[in-house]
Amino acid sequence: MALRARALYDFNSENPGEITVKENEIVTLYSENDIEGWLEGVNSRGERGLFPASYVEILKNDTAPSYNNITAGDGYIGSRYSNVPTVDYDPTFKSQAQHENFTQAPAAGFSSFPVTSQQEHSFQASQGSDDDWDDDWDDSSTVADEPGVVGGSYHDYDGTGPSTYRLTTRSDASSISRGGNAQHPKSSATVSRNLNRFSTFVKSGGEAFVLGEASGFVKDGDKICVVMGQYGPEWQENPYPFTCTIDDPTKQTKFKGMKSYISYKLTPTHTQNPVSRRYKHFDWLYTRLVEKFPVISVPHIPEKQATGRFEEDFISKRRKGLIWWMNHMTSHPVLARCDVFQHFLACTDEKAWKQGKRKAEKDDMVGANFFLTISTPASSLDLQDVESKIDGFKSFTKKMDDSVLQVNATANEFARKQITGFKKEYQKVGQSFKTLSQAFELDQQTYSAGLNHAIAYTGEAYDAIGEYFAEQPKQDLDPVMDLLALYQGHLANYPDIIHVQKGALTKVKESQKHVEEGKMESPQAEGINERCNIISFATLAEIQHFHQIRVRDFKAQMQHFLQQQISFFQKVTHKLEEALQKYDNA
Amino acid sequence: MALRARALYDFNSENPGEITVKENEIVTLYSENDIEGWLEGVNSRGERGLFPASYVEILKNDTAPSYNNITAGDGYIGSRYSNVPTVDYDPTFKSQAQHENFTQAPAAGFSSFPVTSQQEHSFQASQGSDDDWDDDWDDSSTVADEPGVVGGSYHDYDGTGPSTYRLTTRSDASSISRGGNAQHPKSSATVSRNLNRFSTFVKSGGEAFVLGEASGFVKDGDKICVVMGQYGPEWQENPYPFTCTIDDPTKQTKFKGMKSYISYKLTPTHTQNPVSRRYKHFDWLYTRLVEKFPVISVPHIPEKQATGRFEEDFISKRRKGLIWWMNHMTSHPVLARCDVFQHFLACTDEKAWKQGKRKAEKDDMVGANFFLTISTPASSLDLQDVESKIDGFKSFTKKMDDSVLQVNATANEFARKQITGFKKEYQKVGQSFKTLSQAFELDQQTYSAGLNHAIAYTGEAYDAIGEYFAEQPKQDLDPVMDLLALYQGHLANYPDIIHVQKGALTKVKESQKHVEEGKMESPQAEGINERCNIISFATLAEIQHFHQIRVRDFKAQMQHFLQQQISFFQKVTHKLEEALQKYDNA
Repeated sequence: MALRARALYDFNSENPGEITVKENEIVTLYSENDIEGWLEGVNSRGERGLFPASYVEILKNDTAPSYNNITAGDGYIGSRYSNVPTVDYDPTFKSQAQHENFTQAPAAGFSSFPVTSQQEHSFQASQGSDDDWDDDWDDSSTVADEPGVVGGSYHDYDGTGPSTYRLTTRSDASSISRGGNAQHPKSSATVSRNLNRFSTFVKSGGEAFVLGEASGFVKDGDKICVVMGQYGPEWQENPYPFTCTIDDPTKQTKFKGMKSYISYKLTPTHTQNPVSRRYKHFDWLYTRLVEKFPVISVPHIPEKQATGRFEEDFISKRRKGLIWWMNHMTSHPVLARCDVFQHFLACTDEKAWKQGKRKAEKDDMVGANFFLTISTPASSLDLQDVESKIDGFKSFTKKMDDSVLQVNATANEFARKQITGFKKEYQKVGQSFKTLSQAFELDQQTYSAGLNHAIAYTGEAYDAIGEYFAEQPKQDLDPVMDLLALYQGHLANYPDIIHVQKGALTKVKESQKHVEEGKMESPQAEGINERCNIISFATLAEIQHFHQIRVRDFKAQMQHFLQQQISFFQKVTHKLEEALQKYDNA
Repeated sequence: MALRARALYDFNSENPGEITVKENEIVTLYSENDIEGWLEGVNSRGERGLFPASYVEILKNDTAPSYNNITAGDGYIGSRYSNVPTVDYDPTFKSQAQHENFTQAPAAGFSSFPVTSQQEHSFQASQGSDDDWDDDWDDSSTVADEPGVVGGSYHDYDGTGPSTYRLTTRSDASSISRGGNAQHPKSSATVSRNLNRFSTFVKSGGEAFVLGEASGFVKDGDKICVVMGQYGPEWQENPYPFTCTIDDPTKQTKFKGMKSYISYKLTPTHTQNPVSRRYKHFDWLYTRLVEKFPVISVPHIPEKQATGRFEEDFISKRRKGLIWWMNHMTSHPVLARCDVFQHFLACTDEKAWKQGKRKAEKDDMVGANFFLTISTPASSLDLQDVESKIDGFKSFTKKMDDSVLQVNATANEFARKQITGFKKEYQKVGQSFKTLSQAFELDQQTYSAGLNHAIAYTGEAYDAIGEYFAEQPKQDLDPVMDLLALYQGHLANYPDIIHVQKGALTKVKESQKHVEEGKMESPQAEGINERCNIISFATLAEIQHFHQIRVRDFKAQMQHFLQQQISFFQKVTHKLEEALQKYDNA
């Protein structure tokens, strides 16, 4: 029986010699052994070539060769995890954009998965496409200035193959310099590293942590607790919950008017002390958070926009987006409490700001080391149970992403129809009544005057109702779409988060196998298992948090939407009642 | 200075040698003298040829040569007085249809004016395009069986020119046979007849009456009174007002099922005695009324339909049309009381029905003789004042016809949009909410269930609202369109009515001129003036009646429309409130 593998994710061929595989597709392998992270095989369409080893799982007991038939439908590809649902996904364009960022790295095995994942978003954040960004950083040597860097630098890559690949998370560097610490790095000679250095599992530091390579000194204040709640693992609640308002978007200028930007007044409830922040500060903060928290879904900040940044509509839209973002930040037990966010919310002194900024950029406890800060309940999780939960959540996010896309597209279209079509139809009715009343006015009979006036008023009423329709989406559909955009961001984060947990699980399975085969000592395997347990606790806590804010947000938003719709129809009814009354004495 | 004339109506050239003239267009004449009813001249586009003399008025003191520039816009032509506003007017098609009816008559001078005038409608009524019609007349020798006959027969036309043209209204024949009567026919040697025998003025009997040629014995019961009311001349109110319901459309068969038809139960309030009538009876009655009443706007009966006559929708629509028709019949002081209508409403016995039917078909007091039955107030009307009122009403009907067309087109389109587009949009919103709730159901958390259920319910609510939109036009827009159709019928009648009055006025002016020139005796001119006065009283009374029912009908219909719209939006609001409540415990 031929050796087979099942694709875990979509991989789109972008270079000669590579083949495209779709998630769940079965490929026949030529060999189980990878060549520098690549496997060779034949996909279900009979195409022969290379694909990243990390994108597939090898099927040891392949009994379901017909599995190909139930792969994800074509309609799904390209639309999921995209913040721009109405635009077709163009892999060519995407590939080019990546090449620009990764000219020193092989351009493969990257583009197929998280289209707008946290990592990629942070790359974009570093490109300075928004003028807000590139004008006045006090410290030009920030990590964010280097494209493509998430907790490490690919410039260090020496290109000599797997054995010499050097993990370049900052935590790694510090562990070498500091020597002793809580968790000692262990030899990983018998557990193979993931050779796809674009794998989120690797990039996030998840692999390094699982393999015991993370090290850092965890202060008590940095401890992040996962506790067992009513519905499973959850982040320990923030004992000092707060919210933060965002007001007064104000246009500011500097360099004698050469540079303009918008500043917002942020007022956190726990300090009551307003601070002034710009979009680029949010962007900087976002980059820090993505870098620091591998299994936490950092809410995306509103999209950049190159032109029209000072137009009122855009400012209002961005402010709304930032308010949503802030709401999700302050709602998150871990994000709300982290130093860099608190610094962002509280610091008013310029010097202190710069110090805090540098400190955050040199934070050791990011990526792999983040996992060191997690305290979990004493009892271990059942890994099979975890896997099933994660798989369930994966299905959930897919389906939710699909339906969010659909609701978004529908809401968008519905708004457009109300602004154009519905308005036009009601106003045409209004116009025709007005024309009728004008015709009737040619009759000078006194008994006709009341009716003419009433019909004219009815015409105006329908004209007004047309306007109501056009104005309504701002009240009800726009907030729904804002919410959906935020959740599309979260949903785009989860594949990475799931990937990290799955990577950890795979390592556990590998190590168990190695122990069985006598290639690894039990304590080492136990260490891997324990660290995977930590990642699992964190992942499940994050999923739990997601569900809770999702229920909270969608409930509130649906209520708001319906309330607005009710007000709208009541307003229409009221206008018509006014018109009807005009006939009483007609 | 060249001799000029102003076109009173549109005339569309249909044969070689003819030229098209538009209402108000100035034409330069070669001679004031017509040739068999035709004048020769040059229109404003420089085209030279013939047009009907009766379509223009010769300008004696032509001081406004620039008048051409303010003629009616092109957009108006073809659309007015048409019951089918969305279909372009096709003069070619129309001309053919007329040729079929008038193969023995010159095909000119007819098609340009009243597209769906009373006369033409009655021609259509006689063609038996509806199966209802041609199956079972008990008396096959009815006048209605001869196409194109309105109060006279063109078969009698001997084609030898103006001097030998014989007026062939039935009243004419009877006046010859009976000899003496209330108004003696007088010589009209010095007052020229209108040579266009398709002129409504001629066809209606208006000319014959004005020239003193009508004669008949007017019974007291046949007297029709015009009185001076608050707003000018009006028909004397019906002292025994009644209404009539139309119910139970029932499919009947005869000839062992060979023939099927629908019968309606008519119950007039003044007899309380139901009678059974078919569409063809209505059609027969309509033909009688049009023939009998030259200056009364007989409401059009609902359109014929060749196929689908037994479909429920059609039956319901026709019944509604007949109810509207009946409402206008019983509201009219003259029509409501006339013998043939009373016979139609009251007769239950088959033999009596046939007798009444024959009597009505042999009624002498139709056309020219109808005017004999009119009693007017003693004081004469100021003819200039009448002319100005008639002109004002002409402008009014034009403008009203335009706006009725527009309202009708808008209502039609609005209904279509609600049935298709609006329904679809709301149901798409509903569907997307349902999809979202299905996605959320993948999360098995107990705290999620309430929300999922509420969102699913919201989806159903929007689905229902979509249905509400689709069902709504039946409640509000359809009745509006029914009303508009009825008024389009009236508006199509008025050009003929105005034409009759204008023809009478012209005769008065001619006779005055003839008296001045010594060509006519004063008493003869006074007779013409008196008879024109009668026609004017009747016309103004009819116009007054039109305005009164118009105000009544449009007020009632606008109120009904708004009430229905209000109920609709309240129903929508209620549905949304139901959905909102589902979130209370979510």
